Amino acid sequence: MDTFEAIESRRAIKSFDPNYTIPKQEIDKILSAAILSPTSYNIQNWRFVIITNKETKAKLRAASWNQAQVTDASVVIVLCADLLAWKKDPARYWKNAPKATQDYLVPAIIEAYEGQDQFQRDEAIRSCGMAAQTIMLAAKAMNYDSCPMIGFIPEEVAKIINLPQDHIIPMMITIGKALKPANPRGGQLSLDEIVVEDHF
Amino acid sequence: MDTFEAIESRRAIKSFDPNYTIPKQEIDKILSAAILSPTSYNIQNWRFVIITNKETKAKLRAASWNQAQVTDASVVIVLCADLLAWKKDPARYWKNAPKATQDYLVPAIIEAYEGQDQFQRDEAIRSCGMAAQTIMLAAKAMNYDSCPMIGFIPEEVAKIINLPQDHIIPMMITIGKALKPANPRGGQLSLDEIVVEDHF
Repeated sequence: MDTFEAIESRRAIKSFDPNYTIPKQEIDKILSAAILSPTSYNIQNWRFVIITNKETKAKLRAASWNQAQVTDASVVIVLCADLLAWKKDPARYWKNAPKATQDYLVPAIIEAYEGQDQFQRDEAIRSCGMAAQTIMLAAKAMNYDSCPMIGFIPEEVAKIINLPQDHIIPMMITIGKALKPANPRGGQLSLDEIVVEDHF
Repeated sequence: MDTFEAIESRRAIKSFDPNYTIPKQEIDKILSAAILSPTSYNIQNWRFVIITNKETKAKLRAASWNQAQVTDASVVIVLCADLLAWKKDPARYWKNAPKATQDYLVPAIIEAYEGQDQFQRDEAIRSCGMAAQTIMLAAKAMNYDSCPMIGFIPEEVAKIINLPQDHIIPMMITIGKALKPANPRGGQLSLDEIVVEDHF
C-alpha cells in the first residue's frame, strides 16, 4: 500500500473480529518493520510484548477499563522500554561502525543518560512513539487495523506481563481485522492552528 | 512509495544538499500527513515550527552542537508540544462527535491530565514521537531524506523560536535532499532480543 494511503486511512479502530487470527509470520513482518524505527544513539530501547493468549488478553482487558478491542483484536502489543538500555553493553549498538565512531559514540551514550532520570523516561516514550506509528502503518499496509491505547492501569499491566523494574510501558497497540470502521474524525485542527512559521 | 519500502529505506541522513529547496506545497503535504497521526483523546497537542530561514537555521545549528544537517537540509521542523492542550477548549477536539460522546469525552480529558505533570509531559513526547515517524516516512515517500534529532540544547532552541512557557520541544527533524547515503546500520538487535512472547 502507498505510504500516504496508509497514513490517511489509519484510524483508531475499536471493533475487531474476535474470530480472526493474524498469522505469526505477519506479526513478525510488522515487528521486523518496527525495529527499523529510529532511536537516539541507536539504543533500540523498545521491548515489544506480543500477547495472543486468550487468558492474558482477558487480564489485560480488565486492566484497561474493560475495553473490548483488547480481547477482540487478534494481537495486543505492549510497547515497553528499557530505561537503562543505554548502559547495557552499549558497544553492541555500534558494533558494525568504524572503530573511531565506536570510540566516540559509546562513551557519549553513557554521558548523555547517566543520572538523567527524566531524559531516560523521555527517551523511552519517544522511541516507543516512533515505533508505534511504524507498527500502525505497517499493519494498515497489510490491510489490518489498529488501536493505540494509553487507557490502562500501568501497574496492573506491569504485573500481568512481569515487567522488569527498570522498564516502563509507554503504550499498547491492538491489531486485527476491523468489524466496523472508525467514526468520522472528531474535530481536526487546521494546519494554521498547528503550524508555526519560524517562531511563535 | 510502498509503505514497507519507506520504512525500510528511511535512515538518519547527516549530509544534505544545501542548494536544494523543498517547495512549500511539498512541506505542507508532509505536515498535512503529520496531523493525521493519532493523539490520546484527539488532543492534537503537537505544534510544528517550520524553519527555512537561513539566519534562524544558523542559530539553531549553534544550539545543536554545530551539526551540519541543521543548516544544510532544506527545512528544520522543531516538534513542539503544548503541555496544556488538554485544557485549551477541549470541546473543539470532539466538535463533530455525537453529543453523548462529547458529554463523556470532554470531561474525561480534563480528568485524565489535571494535576498530572508527568503524564502531560509523557503525552507531549508520545504524540510527537508518532507524528515524527509520520513526517519521516512521508518525506521518504516523496524521495526526501530526514534526520531525527535530540542533540540540541532545549533552552537555547526555546529562545530562538520564542517557545511559550507551557510548551516543550520533544525533538527536531531536518528534511532535504541527501548528498550521501547513511552508513550501514550500526548494530541491529535481532527480533529475539527485542520481542517477548506473552510476558517477560
